[in-house]
Amino acid sequence: MTSSIIDRVVSQVLTEKALRDFYCVGDTCVGWERNVVDQPETVKKILSNGADRIAAGIGIGGELQDKAVARMIDHTMLKADVSQDDIKQLCNEARQYEFASVCVNPCYVKLCSELLKDTNVKVCTVIGFPLGATTTAVKRAETLEAIENGAQEVDMVINVGMLKAGNFDYIFEDINQVVLAAKRNKVVSKVIIETSLLTDEEKIKACLISKKAKADFVKTSTGFSTGGATAGDVALMKYVVGSSVGVKASGGIRSREDAREMIESGADRIGASASVKIVEGGANPGSGY
Amino acid sequence: MTSSIIDRVVSQVLTEKALRDFYCVGDTCVGWERNVVDQPETVKKILSNGADRIAAGIGIGGELQDKAVARMIDHTMLKADVSQDDIKQLCNEARQYEFASVCVNPCYVKLCSELLKDTNVKVCTVIGFPLGATTTAVKRAETLEAIENGAQEVDMVINVGMLKAGNFDYIFEDINQVVLAAKRNKVVSKVIIETSLLTDEEKIKACLISKKAKADFVKTSTGFSTGGATAGDVALMKYVVGSSVGVKASGGIRSREDAREMIESGADRIGASASVKIVEGGANPGSGY
Repeated sequence: MTSSIIDRVVSQVLTEKALRDFYCVGDTCVGWERNVVDQPETVKKILSNGADRIAAGIGIGGELQDKAVARMIDHTMLKADVSQDDIKQLCNEARQYEFASVCVNPCYVKLCSELLKDTNVKVCTVIGFPLGATTTAVKRAETLEAIENGAQEVDMVINVGMLKAGNFDYIFEDINQVVLAAKRNKVVSKVIIETSLLTDEEKIKACLISKKAKADFVKTSTGFSTGGATAGDVALMKYVVGSSVGVKASGGIRSREDAREMIESGADRIGASASVKIVEGGANPGSGY
Repeated sequence: MTSSIIDRVVSQVLTEKALRDFYCVGDTCVGWERNVVDQPETVKKILSNGADRIAAGIGIGGELQDKAVARMIDHTMLKADVSQDDIKQLCNEARQYEFASVCVNPCYVKLCSELLKDTNVKVCTVIGFPLGATTTAVKRAETLEAIENGAQEVDMVINVGMLKAGNFDYIFEDINQVVLAAKRNKVVSKVIIETSLLTDEEKIKACLISKKAKADFVKTSTGFSTGGATAGDVALMKYVVGSSVGVKASGGIRSREDAREMIESGADRIGASASVKIVEGGANPGSGY
């Protein structure tokens, strides 16, 4: 693995080169690093030029059907002070609107599993959340226990500090242990890379390692850090992982327009607490997490 | 346990009554609930009147020695993007200034344990951090693994949602499993109640249950929620747990004056990232977490 992952990470230099080219269209060049994030309008223009390279596999046209959008949403409630009554309401809404899943903290997995047992709504939980700084052994144990309690999808957080320090073997093993535990039980795994703390180069590395570790999705944000999903990040992540790995946009998605922008940028799944407002339309006062 | 804990919680009504009396001195009454938190100056005046009831057992007079303050500080670094180099610096500072401990995320316990093995500085880590919404089984497993890696103190987060819903048996068991795992290994346990999310009544309940579960400390805040330590909360917590349980003030403590205020309010331990500035004096630009 070691040399293979190093090869991968070395190869990202070439990917970076390709991305530089990609972000320059005609006379307009978005530039690199923060520009990609800070100029969503320009990125969107580029995306519309290169859309078939980015949004392929989504199967949703320009005019998105609400039902189709609902099936892409992880209906999310992860705050520390969430009660069982809040969770019951979350599950009722997910059942009514046919969301892809409910995404809850591990202590509520069993409850959601019972409440949703006769539906198509999956139960999703979070691992090493939101700091990603628990040990690999604990992330693996947490995954196995969540699956035992009924989790069908797990969203794990990478160790951002180790990524920044260049410990790519650690990052691979940390992700891989969770992915292996999930796959053995036919559970979907997503890797939260916490884009707001990363440079674009680090985002690319995190995506490459997640793909190497055979994660099903890469996900932008926990919703508990310094920022959420941006169209630029979603497009970048989709470009790097390709069509075999999904991209989940999460954090700060509060309206139908936000969701549509993410999907048009390449997102295959949306994480939101404002899910009902997204499907029904209208402004939403929620936090988006 | 069940009836015993209910008795305890019922008895808090009486404690509340006592506290109401306590917070009224002469013609000045701080009131109740938010007033205690929102009027730190008034609370401080009251504290100075009732100091010997609150600050007893600390053994530090009005003019605090820096050395004595240093030995009360958990030198803390818990952000998601902390690197090994940051941790090495943290340990060097803790060794130089003789802080009580370094407080780090679980992934760095082994490194700190190696770096500090020939010193009196303890290694402290966090459990179920910062949301407190992992399962009891995972909190216990996380504690045992941290101890195996060299942790000598563990700061666990309560399940705030369950507390608010009145599931006191759950709260007791959640705390108790961590405390038992710690005590068996002669490890100090602290219970983070996340004061900024609680009413004063809930703070009292959380403190009573923590004391019943034989935790060594109650601690105000994770530093990752909506607020940090206040003089009012520290005084309230010290009053409820008495002299046999310590109070750790954490979150937003950025200066020598902040630390002194907490200690004068009854804190036995301070959690801070601005520890060097607190001991050396002067303003500090750090986050306090």
